[in-house]
Amino acid sequence: MTIAIPTPLPSVTTGALPASTKVFKPGILHPGLRVPMREIALHPTAGEPAVTVYDPSGPYTDPAYAVSIDRGLPRLRTDWLTARADTVAYEGRAVTAADNGFVAGDRLTPAFPLRARPRKAVAGGAVTQLAYARAGIVTAEMEFVAIRENLGRQAQIAALQRDGESFGAHIPDVVTPEFVRREVAEGRAIIPANINHPELEPMIIGRNFLVKINANIGNSAVTSSMAEEVDKMVWAIRWGADTVMDLSTGRNIHNIRDWILRNAPVPIGTVPLYQALEKVNGIAEDLTWEVYRDTLIEQAEQGVDYFTIHAGVRLSYIPLTVNRVTGIVSRGGSIMAKWCLHHHRENFLYEHFEEICEIARAYDVSFSLGDGLRPGSIADANDAAQFAELETLGELTKIAWGHDCQVMIEGPGHVPMHKIKANMDKQLAVCGEAPFYTLGPLTTDIAPGYDHITSGIGAAMIGWFGTAMLCYVTPKEHLGLPDRNDVKTGVITYKIAAHAADLAKGHPAARLRDDALSRARFEFRWEDQFNLSLDPDTARAFHDETLPKEAHKVAHFCSMCGPKFCSMRISHDIRAEAQKDGLAAMAAKYRDGGDLYMPVGEGKGEGEGAGVGAGPGREGEA
Amino acid sequence: MTIAIPTPLPSVTTGALPASTKVFKPGILHPGLRVPMREIALHPTAGEPAVTVYDPSGPYTDPAYAVSIDRGLPRLRTDWLTARADTVAYEGRAVTAADNGFVAGDRLTPAFPLRARPRKAVAGGAVTQLAYARAGIVTAEMEFVAIRENLGRQAQIAALQRDGESFGAHIPDVVTPEFVRREVAEGRAIIPANINHPELEPMIIGRNFLVKINANIGNSAVTSSMAEEVDKMVWAIRWGADTVMDLSTGRNIHNIRDWILRNAPVPIGTVPLYQALEKVNGIAEDLTWEVYRDTLIEQAEQGVDYFTIHAGVRLSYIPLTVNRVTGIVSRGGSIMAKWCLHHHRENFLYEHFEEICEIARAYDVSFSLGDGLRPGSIADANDAAQFAELETLGELTKIAWGHDCQVMIEGPGHVPMHKIKANMDKQLAVCGEAPFYTLGPLTTDIAPGYDHITSGIGAAMIGWFGTAMLCYVTPKEHLGLPDRNDVKTGVITYKIAAHAADLAKGHPAARLRDDALSRARFEFRWEDQFNLSLDPDTARAFHDETLPKEAHKVAHFCSMCGPKFCSMRISHDIRAEAQKDGLAAMAAKYRDGGDLYMPVGEGKGEGEGAGVGAGPGREGEA
Repeated sequence: MTIAIPTPLPSVTTGALPASTKVFKPGILHPGLRVPMREIALHPTAGEPAVTVYDPSGPYTDPAYAVSIDRGLPRLRTDWLTARADTVAYEGRAVTAADNGFVAGDRLTPAFPLRARPRKAVAGGAVTQLAYARAGIVTAEMEFVAIRENLGRQAQIAALQRDGESFGAHIPDVVTPEFVRREVAEGRAIIPANINHPELEPMIIGRNFLVKINANIGNSAVTSSMAEEVDKMVWAIRWGADTVMDLSTGRNIHNIRDWILRNAPVPIGTVPLYQALEKVNGIAEDLTWEVYRDTLIEQAEQGVDYFTIHAGVRLSYIPLTVNRVTGIVSRGGSIMAKWCLHHHRENFLYEHFEEICEIARAYDVSFSLGDGLRPGSIADANDAAQFAELETLGELTKIAWGHDCQVMIEGPGHVPMHKIKANMDKQLAVCGEAPFYTLGPLTTDIAPGYDHITSGIGAAMIGWFGTAMLCYVTPKEHLGLPDRNDVKTGVITYKIAAHAADLAKGHPAARLRDDALSRARFEFRWEDQFNLSLDPDTARAFHDETLPKEAHKVAHFCSMCGPKFCSMRISHDIRAEAQKDGLAAMAAKYRDGGDLYMPVGEGKGEGEGAGVGAGPGREGEA
Repeated sequence: MTIAIPTPLPSVTTGALPASTKVFKPGILHPGLRVPMREIALHPTAGEPAVTVYDPSGPYTDPAYAVSIDRGLPRLRTDWLTARADTVAYEGRAVTAADNGFVAGDRLTPAFPLRARPRKAVAGGAVTQLAYARAGIVTAEMEFVAIRENLGRQAQIAALQRDGESFGAHIPDVVTPEFVRREVAEGRAIIPANINHPELEPMIIGRNFLVKINANIGNSAVTSSMAEEVDKMVWAIRWGADTVMDLSTGRNIHNIRDWILRNAPVPIGTVPLYQALEKVNGIAEDLTWEVYRDTLIEQAEQGVDYFTIHAGVRLSYIPLTVNRVTGIVSRGGSIMAKWCLHHHRENFLYEHFEEICEIARAYDVSFSLGDGLRPGSIADANDAAQFAELETLGELTKIAWGHDCQVMIEGPGHVPMHKIKANMDKQLAVCGEAPFYTLGPLTTDIAPGYDHITSGIGAAMIGWFGTAMLCYVTPKEHLGLPDRNDVKTGVITYKIAAHAADLAKGHPAARLRDDALSRARFEFRWEDQFNLSLDPDTARAFHDETLPKEAHKVAHFCSMCGPKFCSMRISHDIRAEAQKDGLAAMAAKYRDGGDLYMPVGEGKGEGEGAGVGAGPGREGEA
């Protein structure tokens, strides 16, 4: 059979971000590692080293790499996997017409041109990072993420700030490979890394690491195509998405996912139930364990790194949703609820959860235990259905751990601010500190079109409280399928939320970038300010709307205040004055100036009854 | 002299928002009041009454009103002011060339065509809402805001939800005029309402009322014009701005402000220092008390409702800023610092604060005590300079109260999440519960171009903690002067933050709109969902991008999931099933189903050691 190459091939955005160079750090335990980071160069007048930032964008931002979408990314993990000698390649499951929703001819998205034979664990073994960690093995993946999390901060150890409220998180000054191993071994962190996704640049999700974000993509029965989805994936990671979920429904699911996986340097998550439902023509009650199981194997062989499993939607919880304002809003949750209801039987995912674990451990597919009963409105937040399911997710977590499977827990949803922390606290308590992975939460229902913002508020807060990964929400949430611009807006908003959370948790290196940008701002290094920002293109474009000339990029003012009023310029004058005489002399002069120059904190009378004119030093009072 | 009418006149956006009707509620103590509210009609299938929402948009959204920018708005407060018989009209200060920055000819923005003689208090009296409140008088303004805050919630008293964490705020079930009077009398709330701004529809700012938002507009020396600023003001209130600050610098300040005030139904705030500086050609050291005092009177006669006064930037605090990462970022703060430094004298605003009070009380100009030393970066948050100034603002608050002047306190700035609450707590403690009015705060420095979001996070949180009014930040912050689109984005973002805060505080009526919108969402009433949202135009446009047909507005799915996967549709099926047999029967059936249908909360073992396969009811485990 001839392989049809789609014409045109997906077009993706490539090239470095402004002033940025991709650098690679080697390993020590595994010297062959090339751990990518982005260095943002500053203007020579700054007299500062380049700022190193986390870089999930993969080879697409490396000018030295020639992108070839129909060949896929380099398979950098193959040697690591081979060296472990605990997996075998095998023929794998044959692709069926059902896998692509029975579509044919012109409407069939061509298969990815290259097919590698899948691997799985040798006879019943566990090839999960959790199994290795428990066995005391520091894998290449673990050393990779340790180096990646540090961003070279060992070199700046003296400058690191420990200022924050961590709510029990314990982020070390420097992340060692052994620290990673221990966090994985104890279930507090996961490294989603299917052995059939060798293109992956490993990353870690856990409360004691940088807060991560996920971007959802995926075509639907109504709109979009493979080329758009591959482009969205590359676009999402360019702006900072740490993982990507392919939530495709409709047709061509198998082939679209193959194109995404072979070109994805980040973990790819899915909801296998969506594809299983396609295989039974969208009739929830026709779902069977066999169809679902077959789908898990199909996706595990392709290399999906984590599965959302809605095993917590138990039959007995469904009546708890009936009087909700918005019922069940999780697609997976509602599908399983309908199945349970129709058959009047327990959720088959719950019943077969140990078999699911057996599959996951053979490929190292991590679990993202789905919150099928998450609240879809402020009215339904933290209700009995939601928390009943969370208890079950805690129970399933322990079962998964019993099979050496990696687990994270999905969280809400729509939650007003005052009910957010209870979610985090309960999750930590009932799920044994397994990483929490939340959708927002949205803090009000009244702003469709702006739900990246309603949810960015909640995401920043729950990230601070301890959520390890934040699933983005785009402006189109509740209204339509996100396009490329929505993906970028969602990713940037969630990078803000995640970074705000890192700052508030007291991550030792989080403030380095804020401080570098603020110094650039104060010193009118406009180019540095743009380049250090999360979205240099937008920052520059906004500045140039009112002051387009190149000369304005070194101007000591901007269009907000104009030249006469610039507070920063005036601050420089003040600083210059201070430096002329020396700060100590200046301070002394101020302190010694008699009652005009009172010591700080000595006001005119702070208690009751200070009243009118009680203070010293007043002249000309009316 | 002939009055030049600018050609063309400012063009502003008018007309009702979708499905909305402006209604007016009468007073009881003051039966002539017409308090505006917006009723959003729902589709007949909803079987629900219209949803009443707060409406600061003024007559512009009233189809019955013929807008005439060159005549200004109706002077609805004139009768109230006259009835109090405690003010006199007088000739007023003559406008000078300096007031408009010495601009002439074509470059001079024409004066507003109609000029009313200003009024002031009779011989030394106080005509402030605070003075009346202390005297036990419930003014028309107080009854107006009481009715306005209630939004008719008396009628739904049984449906009100008290669910939140108020951090010491005490929001009553129903706001009475007497409650308003007491809050004003005790300094916990202000009603900014200059007697020379009779066009004003009064509003209240206080922790025990709905959280308010302010939008900044204003031309600068670099860009924009009177017509643009009037348009921005009308545009800002259309989307929900409760007050507007005119931060104009550059030329034509006096005349632009006149056009804004005469067309503004919301309180207008200014920073008089900006205009004073223009009068001395931008040389901070040339500022004098006399120039400043003259500017206060000029603006008080025009009708400015609140003044930002940077009287807390004391000479002795300036050295505290020298080692900051971003120095002094408040324009007013840096101007005063420069003045203090040059003359080596105490801030003249501090020294003359009681004279400033004497002016304010004669016109009822409220104070917004400026935080000239607010932090401009995460690095500088909550530092000695910031908190030293806050102590002084507390001292000045008590002095202002001694003169019967209304006061609110400005707050930061750039503050990471874990340092936000300390700001609120300290402000409450040292400023005697005077309302807090914060700019954001921004929770990270790394996202220029998205600072509506970095700050929206902080604004929602500090609003929850007790801030009474949130000053918006637009996407252009740090980069350029906001345009019309930025103004709208800033306003909507801050409406989200304010509403999220109201919800979390447990405002008894806040959830009515969320619940109505969520019901509309669940029942696929797309039009209702759009109409109930903060920005119906954007919600509709986003929906129509993928599903433009009218038929899709009643479709029981959207483009995200497509028809087969819709969770809400499935939830309806579940609900229908429940209703068929009755919910009680359904629940009973589930409870009684044997061990497949366990009671909620009875999992498989929640403690350690539940381990593999410990639960009942498993079948087919591997």
